[in-house]
Amino acid sequence: MTRQQLIDQIFLKKSFLCIGLDTDIHLIPPFLLAFEDPVLEFNKRIIDATHDLCVAYKPNSAFYECRGVKGWNSLVETYKYLPEYCFRIIDAKRGDIGNTSGMYAKAFFNERSSGMNFDAITVAPYMGTDSIKPFLAFEDKWVIVLALTSNSGSQDFQFFGNDDSYLFETVIQKANTWATDEHLMYVVGATWADAFLDIRKIAPNHFLLVPGLGVQGGHLNDICKYGLTKDCGLLVNASRSILYASKEEDFAEKAREEAFRIQQEMAIQLQKCNEKF
Amino acid sequence: MTRQQLIDQIFLKKSFLCIGLDTDIHLIPPFLLAFEDPVLEFNKRIIDATHDLCVAYKPNSAFYECRGVKGWNSLVETYKYLPEYCFRIIDAKRGDIGNTSGMYAKAFFNERSSGMNFDAITVAPYMGTDSIKPFLAFEDKWVIVLALTSNSGSQDFQFFGNDDSYLFETVIQKANTWATDEHLMYVVGATWADAFLDIRKIAPNHFLLVPGLGVQGGHLNDICKYGLTKDCGLLVNASRSILYASKEEDFAEKAREEAFRIQQEMAIQLQKCNEKF
Repeated sequence: MTRQQLIDQIFLKKSFLCIGLDTDIHLIPPFLLAFEDPVLEFNKRIIDATHDLCVAYKPNSAFYECRGVKGWNSLVETYKYLPEYCFRIIDAKRGDIGNTSGMYAKAFFNERSSGMNFDAITVAPYMGTDSIKPFLAFEDKWVIVLALTSNSGSQDFQFFGNDDSYLFETVIQKANTWATDEHLMYVVGATWADAFLDIRKIAPNHFLLVPGLGVQGGHLNDICKYGLTKDCGLLVNASRSILYASKEEDFAEKAREEAFRIQQEMAIQLQKCNEKF
Repeated sequence: MTRQQLIDQIFLKKSFLCIGLDTDIHLIPPFLLAFEDPVLEFNKRIIDATHDLCVAYKPNSAFYECRGVKGWNSLVETYKYLPEYCFRIIDAKRGDIGNTSGMYAKAFFNERSSGMNFDAITVAPYMGTDSIKPFLAFEDKWVIVLALTSNSGSQDFQFFGNDDSYLFETVIQKANTWATDEHLMYVVGATWADAFLDIRKIAPNHFLLVPGLGVQGGHLNDICKYGLTKDCGLLVNASRSILYASKEEDFAEKAREEAFRIQQEMAIQLQKCNEKF
């Protein structure tokens, strides 16, 4: 999906919601356990109930790997079920030496090899340029670089630095040289709303993938205050608050209600965005 | 495997060789493609041919994920074939918010959940404390933190810093607070031989996992000069130079020859180590 197609989807749906498919088999409604692949069944129903309210889906690989081969199969089948008009992100936070990152790229960007062909992958920047380049070698794909994450541990190294900059700023500045904002996004946690002002100085047009809404404590208003651009420029992720809105048979309906609630707030923000720019 | 058991294995086998099972289906001898699982068959024969010459095996998850469900199955079956008296490392370079890192820990440390129960995992430190702690919550397991990696991109961020320290040093100092050297190792690339002197000042007793020997240009003598401790303190990894020593039917034999060559050099280093301490 190109940047323009993504922007079109956002203004069409009046939504910049990304739904994180962090599906934990121990948290899904028990009646689903009777299905051959309970995780897949859960995901399908969540997707059916929300695909018109969000613009992106983001399965996190950890939630699938923890179940071994079965889990990996659920991930591949979930990928296949994702609508093509939604932006499909694999949240994998990979990164290794160039040769090896090339294998990770095949894992998520080469359907013939792995059965999956996501639009984008999240990557960890610690190993530098050659650990990221192989993902960008795939035409029309996106790399989403961890910059300032939503968790408490983000304070340990991401704010390490000197008089000129923090590590997360250095990461953004360096990553800006790897590709344009047509292929590169940054992860910035919803819990760092004030930081969006500074981040927009060094990444004025980049889309930012923003986790941490809801359970982790971030608020949409705060994110949008400095994060929103004329093209929207944000994909805001919610996972647990949508997936586990109910643990009963009505879980998909309740998930839709929560997604709708967020989408309605987003529509207001996008209206402001239209007025502002 | 405990630290003492690892040290005992090293001095018993006169080897601190770790063999990286970075098995690329496109690089293995073509006759193996007739097998149901060519990658597994290759790995089994490599393990059979080398298990008395090395003390550790380290499959890199990328080389398995790139083949989707099939590849993940090869990884699980390879894990099952690894001898228990060898230190079993999964080179996965994972790291995510606490909740999610817990899922990755289950993926590699919980056999009932995933079919795998490695002794150790490599992790990326960018997301900080809560991204690593879930791996350390598993008793008797090891976490191997990326510090100074062997690739060219290591220069992009790992040497970012201030008058007090570089990022990789800050990572080591912080990680030292997470666990003792009974459960924590660091990745230091063979290509940074001179840095071992400084690293030994802040991690005097920790085992260091050292990739980059052979194809990547590192030399054993240089690594040992400052890296070796009285307990050895090193696991030096070789992958491609062993795995692909031959592409013919004699590949396992040639792999053994290369592993033997390295082990013989290591025996000399360990002798020096006995004399020095």
